[in-house]
Amino acid sequence: MTRELENYFDRLCPICRSLTGNGNRETLKILSEIVDLNITEIPSGTACFDWNIPPEWNVKEAWIKDPKGNIVVDFKNNNLHLVGYSIPFKGRISLSELKSHLYTLPEQPDLIPYITSYYKERWGFCITHNQLLSLQEGEYEVCIDSSLDTNGSMTIADALIKGQTDAEILLSTYICHPSLANNELSGPLVSSFLYRSLKTRKLRYTYRFVFVPETIGTIYYLSKYGEHLKKKLGAGFVVTTIGDNGTFTYKRSRRGNSLADKAVELVLKQQEKDYTIEDFYPQGSDERQYCSPGFNLPVGSLMRTRYWNYKEYHTSGDNKKIISFDAMQKSIETYLDVLNLMEANLKYINKMPFCEPQLGKRGLYSTIGSKKSPDHLTPMMWLLNLADGTNDLIDIANRSNIPYKQLIDVAELLISKDLLEIKDQEQ
Amino acid sequence: MTRELENYFDRLCPICRSLTGNGNRETLKILSEIVDLNITEIPSGTACFDWNIPPEWNVKEAWIKDPKGNIVVDFKNNNLHLVGYSIPFKGRISLSELKSHLYTLPEQPDLIPYITSYYKERWGFCITHNQLLSLQEGEYEVCIDSSLDTNGSMTIADALIKGQTDAEILLSTYICHPSLANNELSGPLVSSFLYRSLKTRKLRYTYRFVFVPETIGTIYYLSKYGEHLKKKLGAGFVVTTIGDNGTFTYKRSRRGNSLADKAVELVLKQQEKDYTIEDFYPQGSDERQYCSPGFNLPVGSLMRTRYWNYKEYHTSGDNKKIISFDAMQKSIETYLDVLNLMEANLKYINKMPFCEPQLGKRGLYSTIGSKKSPDHLTPMMWLLNLADGTNDLIDIANRSNIPYKQLIDVAELLISKDLLEIKDQEQ
Amino acid sequence: MTRELENYFDRLCPICRSLTGNGNRETLKILSEIVDLNITEIPSGTACFDWNIPPEWNVKEAWIKDPKGNIVVDFKNNNLHLVGYSIPFKGRISLSELKSHLYTLPEQPDLIPYITSYYKERWGFCITHNQLLSLQEGEYEVCIDSSLDTNGSMTIADALIKGQTDAEILLSTYICHPSLANNELSGPLVSSFLYRSLKTRKLRYTYRFVFVPETIGTIYYLSKYGEHLKKKLGAGFVVTTIGDNGTFTYKRSRRGNSLADKAVELVLKQQEKDYTIEDFYPQGSDERQYCSPGFNLPVGSLMRTRYWNYKEYHTSGDNKKIISFDAMQKSIETYLDVLNLMEANLKYINKMPFCEPQLGKRGLYSTIGSKKSPDHLTPMMWLLNLADGTNDLIDIANRSNIPYKQLIDVAELLISKDLLEIKDQEQ
Repeated sequence: MTRELENYFDRLCPICRSLTGNGNRETLKILSEIVDLNITEIPSGTACFDWNIPPEWNVKEAWIKDPKGNIVVDFKNNNLHLVGYSIPFKGRISLSELKSHLYTLPEQPDLIPYITSYYKERWGFCITHNQLLSLQEGEYEVCIDSSLDTNGSMTIADALIKGQTDAEILLSTYICHPSLANNELSGPLVSSFLYRSLKTRKLRYTYRFVFVPETIGTIYYLSKYGEHLKKKLGAGFVVTTIGDNGTFTYKRSRRGNSLADKAVELVLKQQEKDYTIEDFYPQGSDERQYCSPGFNLPVGSLMRTRYWNYKEYHTSGDNKKIISFDAMQKSIETYLDVLNLMEANLKYINKMPFCEPQLGKRGLYSTIGSKKSPDHLTPMMWLLNLADGTNDLIDIANRSNIPYKQLIDVAELLISKDLLEIKDQEQ
Repeated sequence: MTRELENYFDRLCPICRSLTGNGNRETLKILSEIVDLNITEIPSGTACFDWNIPPEWNVKEAWIKDPKGNIVVDFKNNNLHLVGYSIPFKGRISLSELKSHLYTLPEQPDLIPYITSYYKERWGFCITHNQLLSLQEGEYEVCIDSSLDTNGSMTIADALIKGQTDAEILLSTYICHPSLANNELSGPLVSSFLYRSLKTRKLRYTYRFVFVPETIGTIYYLSKYGEHLKKKLGAGFVVTTIGDNGTFTYKRSRRGNSLADKAVELVLKQQEKDYTIEDFYPQGSDERQYCSPGFNLPVGSLMRTRYWNYKEYHTSGDNKKIISFDAMQKSIETYLDVLNLMEANLKYINKMPFCEPQLGKRGLYSTIGSKKSPDHLTPMMWLLNLADGTNDLIDIANRSNIPYKQLIDVAELLISKDLLEIKDQEQ
Repeated sequence: MTRELENYFDRLCPICRSLTGNGNRETLKILSEIVDLNITEIPSGTACFDWNIPPEWNVKEAWIKDPKGNIVVDFKNNNLHLVGYSIPFKGRISLSELKSHLYTLPEQPDLIPYITSYYKERWGFCITHNQLLSLQEGEYEVCIDSSLDTNGSMTIADALIKGQTDAEILLSTYICHPSLANNELSGPLVSSFLYRSLKTRKLRYTYRFVFVPETIGTIYYLSKYGEHLKKKLGAGFVVTTIGDNGTFTYKRSRRGNSLADKAVELVLKQQEKDYTIEDFYPQGSDERQYCSPGFNLPVGSLMRTRYWNYKEYHTSGDNKKIISFDAMQKSIETYLDVLNLMEANLKYINKMPFCEPQLGKRGLYSTIGSKKSPDHLTPMMWLLNLADGTNDLIDIANRSNIPYKQLIDVAELLISKDLLEIKDQEQ
């Protein structure tokens, strides 16, 4: 799978994504090879809650020529060079005037910053601080052949895998960062491959995958589906910064003890040596919208090294060198573990709740009593004891400290022996 | 008391107890000298929940003769030598065939294991591993003159001390292990002497003492009295492995915060320096049945060194050498402390709840105010302050960190001064 | 303010206060310069709950002359010399008889103890232990010209500052200790200056200031206003031992999580480096009455070095040398912080609870997106996220770890931008 991940990464990375524009359409077209996406165009100006969809932004070319006429900054080389949503501009200006339109990182002088100006009209270029220092006095020629089309649209996509019930699991990721690797492409890639893993399986939950520009895309999506999600959502995750070699970080949902939180925390506790659990805070990525007080959805975010916690964040340093396709595959597997756990997280009823059933006559117990009971007995006894209809599998795993995968297997065995049954799920 | 305990131990230890049989009858007859036992015979084959009472097992003799005709293993010397519930067998067999019927402990080569086969017909002998290694090739003569009588019965017993209310405290112990000291005889001995201590006292609770074979006896007993106990049981304890010099171990009831749990934990906290509190787990002794999900009774187990935690467990090493009759007497006293605490665990009402009563005019306060208030004042103030009908004595002791015995005394004093009254107990 | 505090201290310190008497009247008259006191006389003998107001005690003179006729102990020099509520006595007695009326502190031989005998008739003098050792054999002349007038009265006072609501905050202090500095005068001084700070402000809460003799005064006051306070009191504090340089000690109300407790604990956590939080215990000062089970009012006590915790407690060592007027001013400020926090402790409603409002178009967000969001954004996001009508400002400060003063400012800003509104307070 890692080779496939890398191929898709290499195709997607150079594309100029933003809140809107052809780069987003191209990105979703490529992801359509993996995910059965429903792609929708939302007209610029469409109102959603306190917001409006911005004009559609596209860029033909953007460059700066030095006083000698040499192109010294070119959008073609790296789409981070242009401030996102820069308005068109053509002209010859002095170095000093140019500098008021240049953005650099003095403390990381070799990196290009990632800068946007979505809701205020301006233009600008992002360059390394070293390049800034090397610029000679004189007149510079600037060309930004961009367009901001109020008759354009924002492109979003989602995909549904129908399960046996209409209770939903949400996986939401964003598609608005240009050539950035961990903070952004790891998200759509992990989401897409999760979709592919799940789509042919028989599932209890219905899975909703969302690919939208951060913030405005999610706000629009919630203006359409927020009330539906308040009724149907069992758990959800914002998939981001999930492609590097760092240990896992889980940011809890605002509720703090939702199914999303309980499932991730059990998987990490039982499977990972080092990891970080963070309480919810109202800054970060799209969980800000999902967990706004009017929705308060059970949405957390399972990441590796979190946004803000790595020095390449929002710079040209967030590139292929700092991610790992092996790590990304492990991220997909861990997300699948979490989803599988939620699929299996049933409440059980012990069909013989008065004293223990006689396991021996069912071949479930050693016929000879000696110094120790067999080790495999322990999960069986815990399941029978706690299967009173109030504990779900996560509760049983937490109270017993038994690996949840072992409990899932033993529960199936006990069901086959007619000792256990699944409790009807509450709606 | 220790001499009496030792005498009873010496009389009871050699008897061959099992799930059924004359050894159990003899055991209960001896215990009848201490406890007013109601002894009942339950016919073999009687159904109880998922189980049936097994045939009655008795043994006349059982031995092995070596090729030279010398008896090398004899049930008469140690009833652990015979696998419990061995079927009758007579015959001459090779050493190699014999070995498939021999059980040893290679890692404890001087000890005889304790082995049973209640629900599958087989025969076998238990010997030390050293003896196994010394056996010579040749033909051995085996004699097991045992009987498994489907017209027999299982013998159980209980005893009731009626208190002022029909709320019950249960003390349950088992009588199915042959010559084993800590894990088993400490249990019936401590239970019996507790009965003797309580039977002449005026008690608030009704006390139920149960002497049954482990597992099947308890399952039968619950099939008869389980519904009654669900209505009436205030607290209960499985009395086992309570006769050695180890510190106390308390295994909580499945509920985790039942009266049984709260009382034991306060006594241990205030009276013992080292002790262990364990959360409930569904393996162990008869609390497995009492705490099965259909009953979920408030039954814990106050032990000393717990089964599985000492190396002589279920071997011939669990004998008189590893127990202490002084420790057993201290165990009885500690159980009595717990029972006394539950007897005294009332909720109180301060009859002058608005501001403090004037203690001075009742002779309860120093008439001269100076740098410090008298130390004896503290429990009085705590009782008056928390006696609002919501806190029981255990709550008050926990919040105030005052020894519960001192609180009991001061509560009596305050009642005599008409400052406190006992709240009517909820049913 | 410190100079004013010191002036008042110097005027109040020499006055002989007790449960009753002219010293208390003089004390309240001086405090009337700062507080608009309602002064009330309660006749001796008046019943209140289990108590009666004692006779009024006044002293004209009290001294001891040694065998040579020299006055060796004189009430005029230090009113601690006379046991509080000493009955009148005149006579010539031997040293040995005199000694049965003398109180000293052998372990603090240079200090005079503070002793009272309110409810048993006796007389006595308090002297240093060194003086006791120096007394020569011979006949001593004793004069106590005191009166215990059953037709007298107990003098108490209160003051109310009406707020916008009738929910009340109580500040209760006592006026019955004679020339003692930290344990007593710091209390009335801090209370009085708090009154002066609050009286001209527009306040949400109504403030009730109480100046009464300890215990009997509070019991009387509760007999009059206890039922009213049960309905109206939002939070209260006993103001005592608040004038020294020690770190703050907060003793929680009996409820343990009342508004008083939450407000003080947040202020101390966010503003103080070292401080002590104590759970309620039913000994101490007037919180014993306010927190008696019939009232159980939300009354704690914010102190500096608590009574019992300093060696000069209830001795002549508790004088001007061990207090600090700078510390007292800081105490007043900290109490004001607590009161201000309670004034501002509202629940808010986010008026745009579905997703985030667009802060940028309101000038609340940077128009350029880069590596980091501006620091000032954090309190805004927390307020908007948690403003769902269930969290008050203290809850938001605790969950976000943001200084509550910053939250108060930002809440005002958000209200001015029509993004937040104050939830109607429950009665």
